[in-house]
Amino acid sequence: MKTAKLLLHCPDKPGILAAVTDFITINKGNIVYLDQYVDREEKEFFMRIEWELENFLIPQEKVEDYFDTLYAQKYDMKYRIYFSDRKPRMAIFVSKMSHCIYDLLARYTAGEWDVEIPLIISNHPDLQHVADRFGIPFHVFPITKENKAEQEAKEMELLKENGVNFIVLARYMQVISEKMIEAYPSKIINIHHSFLPAFVGAKPYHAAFERGVKIIGATSHYVTTELDAGPIIEQDVVRITHKDTVQDLINKGKDLEKIVLSRAVQKHIDRKVLAYKNKTVIFN
Amino acid sequence: MKTAKLLLHCPDKPGILAAVTDFITINKGNIVYLDQYVDREEKEFFMRIEWELENFLIPQEKVEDYFDTLYAQKYDMKYRIYFSDRKPRMAIFVSKMSHCIYDLLARYTAGEWDVEIPLIISNHPDLQHVADRFGIPFHVFPITKENKAEQEAKEMELLKENGVNFIVLARYMQVISEKMIEAYPSKIINIHHSFLPAFVGAKPYHAAFERGVKIIGATSHYVTTELDAGPIIEQDVVRITHKDTVQDLINKGKDLEKIVLSRAVQKHIDRKVLAYKNKTVIFN
Amino acid sequence: MKTAKLLLHCPDKPGILAAVTDFITINKGNIVYLDQYVDREEKEFFMRIEWELENFLIPQEKVEDYFDTLYAQKYDMKYRIYFSDRKPRMAIFVSKMSHCIYDLLARYTAGEWDVEIPLIISNHPDLQHVADRFGIPFHVFPITKENKAEQEAKEMELLKENGVNFIVLARYMQVISEKMIEAYPSKIINIHHSFLPAFVGAKPYHAAFERGVKIIGATSHYVTTELDAGPIIEQDVVRITHKDTVQDLINKGKDLEKIVLSRAVQKHIDRKVLAYKNKTVIFN
Amino acid sequence: MKTAKLLLHCPDKPGILAAVTDFITINKGNIVYLDQYVDREEKEFFMRIEWELENFLIPQEKVEDYFDTLYAQKYDMKYRIYFSDRKPRMAIFVSKMSHCIYDLLARYTAGEWDVEIPLIISNHPDLQHVADRFGIPFHVFPITKENKAEQEAKEMELLKENGVNFIVLARYMQVISEKMIEAYPSKIINIHHSFLPAFVGAKPYHAAFERGVKIIGATSHYVTTELDAGPIIEQDVVRITHKDTVQDLINKGKDLEKIVLSRAVQKHIDRKVLAYKNKTVIFN
Repeated sequence: MKTAKLLLHCPDKPGILAAVTDFITINKGNIVYLDQYVDREEKEFFMRIEWELENFLIPQEKVEDYFDTLYAQKYDMKYRIYFSDRKPRMAIFVSKMSHCIYDLLARYTAGEWDVEIPLIISNHPDLQHVADRFGIPFHVFPITKENKAEQEAKEMELLKENGVNFIVLARYMQVISEKMIEAYPSKIINIHHSFLPAFVGAKPYHAAFERGVKIIGATSHYVTTELDAGPIIEQDVVRITHKDTVQDLINKGKDLEKIVLSRAVQKHIDRKVLAYKNKTVIFN
Repeated sequence: MKTAKLLLHCPDKPGILAAVTDFITINKGNIVYLDQYVDREEKEFFMRIEWELENFLIPQEKVEDYFDTLYAQKYDMKYRIYFSDRKPRMAIFVSKMSHCIYDLLARYTAGEWDVEIPLIISNHPDLQHVADRFGIPFHVFPITKENKAEQEAKEMELLKENGVNFIVLARYMQVISEKMIEAYPSKIINIHHSFLPAFVGAKPYHAAFERGVKIIGATSHYVTTELDAGPIIEQDVVRITHKDTVQDLINKGKDLEKIVLSRAVQKHIDRKVLAYKNKTVIFN
Repeated sequence: MKTAKLLLHCPDKPGILAAVTDFITINKGNIVYLDQYVDREEKEFFMRIEWELENFLIPQEKVEDYFDTLYAQKYDMKYRIYFSDRKPRMAIFVSKMSHCIYDLLARYTAGEWDVEIPLIISNHPDLQHVADRFGIPFHVFPITKENKAEQEAKEMELLKENGVNFIVLARYMQVISEKMIEAYPSKIINIHHSFLPAFVGAKPYHAAFERGVKIIGATSHYVTTELDAGPIIEQDVVRITHKDTVQDLINKGKDLEKIVLSRAVQKHIDRKVLAYKNKTVIFN
Repeated sequence: MKTAKLLLHCPDKPGILAAVTDFITINKGNIVYLDQYVDREEKEFFMRIEWELENFLIPQEKVEDYFDTLYAQKYDMKYRIYFSDRKPRMAIFVSKMSHCIYDLLARYTAGEWDVEIPLIISNHPDLQHVADRFGIPFHVFPITKENKAEQEAKEMELLKENGVNFIVLARYMQVISEKMIEAYPSKIINIHHSFLPAFVGAKPYHAAFERGVKIIGATSHYVTTELDAGPIIEQDVVRITHKDTVQDLINKGKDLEKIVLSRAVQKHIDRKVLAYKNKTVIFN
């Protein structure tokens, strides 16, 4: 059943919820999902609503126009409308570790996700064999300090050619430069192998070991220009003991990383995440 | 049944485990617990062993002497021997929040812990009524920048008079000064209301809210002279969402804090914690 | 700020949400909370809404009348309206174990909960001292097979005299009889010391030990006439190992029980639970 | 570095630990791991010890003989010795769902596990493509009530030809018959998609949904002749809400299943599991 999903936020005022639900109901849309939330402190209203398009009176290509004119301007809304017949296109960036990409591709191949993965990009050739197993084009762009800007420009061209909507950094061990981040705002999902904001930066498992923590974590977030500081989408943790070596932490962490990253990607694909002021609203 | 508990660590060498178990078995002690662990990287051996004293051939008051002469010196051991008929004496320090102290006193009163609590110390009079409910002497020492050294000196005298072995900071909102920390090495247990090392210092729930984390935590650790940086005994976490306000975090955090603190105190009372190089070994 | 809380469910139809929010907005109520949920399978609509009464045009004592006439009948709603100036009155039932009641009373005394606790009822005299510490009347009703009906009748009279709205069984080791359960539908909260539906009935920790599970749990639920089978409000778990004895499970379980029970009670007091067809809807 | 791993259990007596460590130390074996545990109630001693073989005086092929003659008989030990240069050989059984097998094969291919996977067996052809991606022989044995004994006989022959040491049922939707179970005692690892012993048998997610639990789980266990009742190796859980449909439970459960199964398989491969009286001892 074809549906539309509308995500929005705007200054909170009486009547927004009624206005939006009216827009859909009056035009004979059948609402199948509604979640709304008001940040009382910021006085900001957030909403996600999904409806079936079958008998909807407004043609699909005009929905956005109508909504914009009738409601969005009036309430000063920031919003996005997504249609279920247009699958998001996702690029995966990897380096040398395979646990996250295997998890992503296994879900993709099993049809768990409503997404297309037209290509994989890497700064190393090591995981070519993984891409081959799943029949997905694999492009290698080795990065040095000297060629970084140039290589990223090529990557961005390739992403554009492939109609990529968002990027998943599946343990991609390269800092993305500002230009690329700004081209994909709230559209680059990273997995950091620590419970942020603890252990920002390189070698977080070594740092966790040194500090003697009893629990380690992983964090998936949107990439912003400040390293490991973007809006957090998902986190999870696992208990460790003094008996665990750094290598044990790395091994236990791998399971966390792949699950946390996949949960974040799933929420993004399902259009359940709304980034706002360096935080995320996650709809149920 | 009266028992002795021996905790030790020393450079790892072949034969230590056999030597210590022999010492007990030959002297007709019945071993009821043994846990050992070798840090392969540091080449350090750690052990906790407990045995029944009933038929033990060495008189209780001479056990330490004998062990020291026969083994500790030979293997360069750091060790402590505890006897089950000598209850540890614990002081509680509080300020204004009652959730942790209620949890500690409920366990104490129910006989869950093998401990004596001769007194409670506070920098505020607010929780006098809690102490009164449980019939435990409550001493108020208001602290200012000017009188801090003087007040702490009085506190330490009082602790000494009461034969206090260790101190539990049950949300005591005052930094303990170096002199007092050094008088109680690995004997002051604090609860910090964050998942350390994230959000060190004041107002961690506000900081967690600002950062938009999806999980909050609490950490119990031994107090050292570096703030919130001592050996971690126990940590735990709870999931939050974007809907939680700072006040919600504080409320959810309270449950974490009291449980995490009580677990740490229990392990300390049971002599299951061994601090080593800013980390802890926690025996099972 | 005085508020009204409205909880309702009814067959799902277009326009309910708009109708209810309109009712409040038109009458100048300021909505401070709204959570709604549609069970698509059952085609049932659930809602919790809270608004400030300060400028509300309908007098407090007529709100229910108006809502009933104007909306509830029209949409075939099951609903309840609660006003923040009328604190719910809660009775605690206990037997011999004190960990849950201490946790409840510590929160109550610290002012964490918007509730009155006029009395404690027990089938044993053992915990009189706990009630005394907190200055709450304690009534003992020893129960035998012979006197059960008679004693429960007296208890119910006492509850009525004290205007009790709901009952918390804080490890009360007596099956409540049908008559009493029916007098308090979805108003008796129990804590069962297992992860239901595993280990229904007596001695769940022994059963868990025998089965060799690696995780134990606790479950808080509304009491129905089928033992340990009522609507679940809250559950939580803790990891155990083969080294844990039955006594260790009991000790670890105690922390779970008190936290799980208190979370359930808090949700009930906050009017965030709606029981429906042997399940609960828990509003955020 | 080549090592030997010895797992044993026997009636608890003084001196066992010393005897076993002596056996290794005297013969110039360097102990790199030792974990021991005494079940005080059953009076049973459990041990896992690992040592480097480089300078070990007893030739590898005679280690078992010597140990048996010198110690095992004396102490009435049940034991197994494993050498690190002989990789265990594991067969995977699957049906139609791919999430577990992908997780297993991704780890295998990445070299995470010290194991050989010579073949995959299925009762359906659906997952042939997964086996092909990883280049592992895939054998289909459709099972009906009539041909079950015959097909399993063929499977067992195939397993024997391939030198298979243990079997992983990666969501294999067929009950294994007694004959096969007895041929692989504590060597068939299953993943059950519930928190056992809750929801034994078919459709546990539907049952969990019906019961309205707030947490679901997955359980990995050794297969015994009683359905879903074998020794539990690993369990884990995830929180759900009333908003989750049966399909949501299935999706959330998949992540649990694959992680729990892989953790169990890893422990089995690492020789860290000892089954005893329908429970498992899991060495650290």
